[in-house]
Amino acid sequence: MLNIAIAGLGTVGAGVVRLLQTNGELIAARAGQPINIKAISARDKGKKRDCDLSGIVWVDDVRKLAEMPGVDAVVELIGGADGIARELAEVTLKKGRSYITANKALIAAYGRALARLAEQNKAQLLFEASVAGGIPVIKALREGLAGNRIRAARGILNGTCNYILSRMREAKISFAEALAEAQAKGYAEADPAGDIDGHDTANKLAILTALAYGVEPDLTAMSIAGIRPVTPADIQAAEEIDCRIKLLGLVEESDGGIAQQVSPCLVPKSSLLAQTEGVMNAVLLRGDFVGDLALQGRGAGAEPTASAVVADIIDLARGLSIPAFGVKAAQLKKARFSRHVPARRMYLRVPAVDKSGALVDIAAALRTGGVTVEKLLPPEALVLGKTDPAVLSRAVAKLGAVFMMPIMD
Amino acid sequence: MLNIAIAGLGTVGAGVVRLLQTNGELIAARAGQPINIKAISARDKGKKRDCDLSGIVWVDDVRKLAEMPGVDAVVELIGGADGIARELAEVTLKKGRSYITANKALIAAYGRALARLAEQNKAQLLFEASVAGGIPVIKALREGLAGNRIRAARGILNGTCNYILSRMREAKISFAEALAEAQAKGYAEADPAGDIDGHDTANKLAILTALAYGVEPDLTAMSIAGIRPVTPADIQAAEEIDCRIKLLGLVEESDGGIAQQVSPCLVPKSSLLAQTEGVMNAVLLRGDFVGDLALQGRGAGAEPTASAVVADIIDLARGLSIPAFGVKAAQLKKARFSRHVPARRMYLRVPAVDKSGALVDIAAALRTGGVTVEKLLPPEALVLGKTDPAVLSRAVAKLGAVFMMPIMD
Repeated sequence: MLNIAIAGLGTVGAGVVRLLQTNGELIAARAGQPINIKAISARDKGKKRDCDLSGIVWVDDVRKLAEMPGVDAVVELIGGADGIARELAEVTLKKGRSYITANKALIAAYGRALARLAEQNKAQLLFEASVAGGIPVIKALREGLAGNRIRAARGILNGTCNYILSRMREAKISFAEALAEAQAKGYAEADPAGDIDGHDTANKLAILTALAYGVEPDLTAMSIAGIRPVTPADIQAAEEIDCRIKLLGLVEESDGGIAQQVSPCLVPKSSLLAQTEGVMNAVLLRGDFVGDLALQGRGAGAEPTASAVVADIIDLARGLSIPAFGVKAAQLKKARFSRHVPARRMYLRVPAVDKSGALVDIAAALRTGGVTVEKLLPPEALVLGKTDPAVLSRAVAKLGAVFMMPIMD
Repeated sequence: MLNIAIAGLGTVGAGVVRLLQTNGELIAARAGQPINIKAISARDKGKKRDCDLSGIVWVDDVRKLAEMPGVDAVVELIGGADGIARELAEVTLKKGRSYITANKALIAAYGRALARLAEQNKAQLLFEASVAGGIPVIKALREGLAGNRIRAARGILNGTCNYILSRMREAKISFAEALAEAQAKGYAEADPAGDIDGHDTANKLAILTALAYGVEPDLTAMSIAGIRPVTPADIQAAEEIDCRIKLLGLVEESDGGIAQQVSPCLVPKSSLLAQTEGVMNAVLLRGDFVGDLALQGRGAGAEPTASAVVADIIDLARGLSIPAFGVKAAQLKKARFSRHVPARRMYLRVPAVDKSGALVDIAAALRTGGVTVEKLLPPEALVLGKTDPAVLSRAVAKLGAVFMMPIMD
């Protein structure tokens, strides 16, 4: 019997309890032993929850879970890089107990230190649910593609942003309207900044990068742009060149280093990424031997996230023993991150353009600055050819406030 | 150091050698120890191969690999359910050594017995490369979705058939022409029956079914149809209802049992399956908590298959210890397979139709027999609504020789 303690009983926590109860027998057969929820802790004991907690010890102080006799692993579904989650992770791992979490902020910020702590204490640190919900992408990178040198990864990693962008396109509504709708449906939080400004995607990208390249997760070496500036006009202009706008996390080798970028991007309508709509997530991985691999599935919500958490629990019960990031923490390199993202075709909107003809002048100025202009998208946007990033930023700087998005192949 | 012996040095065998050599350092870091190719055996020692065999012991009799001192695992890339592969598997596992293979025929035919042998001798039986080439779908089912009750799985599992169907559509050529082209390119074998008649897909489907439902692989309880009967007229008619034709392996719960089916099917043009072209493979999995998960990647070829084989090798080096089919061999049920595939909309071609008007008469006869006719696709095809399979076969039997394909949602 594997005894777990669950910290945090929000949607995901309740989903994990429900899944372990619903499929208990099946899970026991696959895990090789029953999984027992020994104890549970959350902020509000009285709150009505969509799961049965009878027979489970309630603990008021979440820190106590790590030290309860007989607990093999703590499953943390609280979230947040600092504060209680970090403290709980440290205490749990120091006790030689495993730590399973969906907490992307924690892993992106302290992944290496926690991985080291896990190794030192012969415990496992598992976080499949931290990236792309139910899609087993951590496992795919850490194990399924372990023979490959990863060349690139890109993905739609935030369901909130994807929902907003999908709704803007389908319903021809503004960003603000789509955000309000997402909030009403429970897809976006009251304070949506973490999602829409790209930080959630950045956390997930840092984790994918660490797994793909064997480097320490590093949020500082990343260019991060969110979806607030995207207008209905952008969505319309993207349609005109058979593209859709998606918030992507991108990482690839560039300029001898590793370039990480979070940005709204134009992707071809015919691509898997364009066809990943609403709250779905998708990740594309490119390995030197496997070639291109695409994974698409539900990126958030109680059930898919619970599926990922329980996969980690079953792995643990089966005796899985792999370093958290695929290689020993001591071998995780401090990456040489590239300051330059690779040259790509770009979508450029110059909001100040209001007279017809002005767009032609802007194109001429860009050409003079060494930038190829492939197409005008009146009234205020242009498609630029692949240009050296330094040349591009010099030329664009002269135009004042602009909005740019990469156009992906 | 993990010592392996490789049996079989065709395209895939040479690919595995190349991958272990190319990414040796990376693989050692991820595996926690170096992987050493200790010995190798193939039919023709003199043959020129696309890999460096210096320093590797050549063994003429492949059976000897299983008994060589110091060998931890045999990697079999010979193929075939019976004969040498089966013998090698049995000897290797009985010696308490692990067996890693891409051999779908072997696993589909003797998977349970071999899994039991592996357990009895504390060895691992691993076969990620047996289904869908580089796509880590075995791992996704056995581990990534281990918390889920699987509701259904479907996939494009044979690159040869998918290439032929893609070419028939793109180049408007006949089945025979597309097959000849596939043979010229090395995508189809001189004797293509195993691929085009659906047996290769059937082997892979049996393996997926075993993993998904915890049952013994069973090729007998399966309806198998290949792509030989598909004509350019079918491809054209499918286009008219915004579909493409794909050879699918399908499994789902039906009628209280498990229904396995291999058949060319019509899939909506907008679906991931329709957009999986050429030698690509794709698998869709549906779990009760994770929802729908799609995986798409290269389904064959030296490099992607080597990627899957090496993932198994690394898992073994990392100490992975999971029953071959996710649950103990003794727990694998003899499934109650459903003789009836679920009712679906159907594409029906009545080849004898040659006079205009006759299609209307056929539609009338079908309606009289209790079948809904949704649409006529002159000159000789019809779209039928969801009908009870027994009713449908009675009504269709009266039409003489016909060709039917399910239309997927």
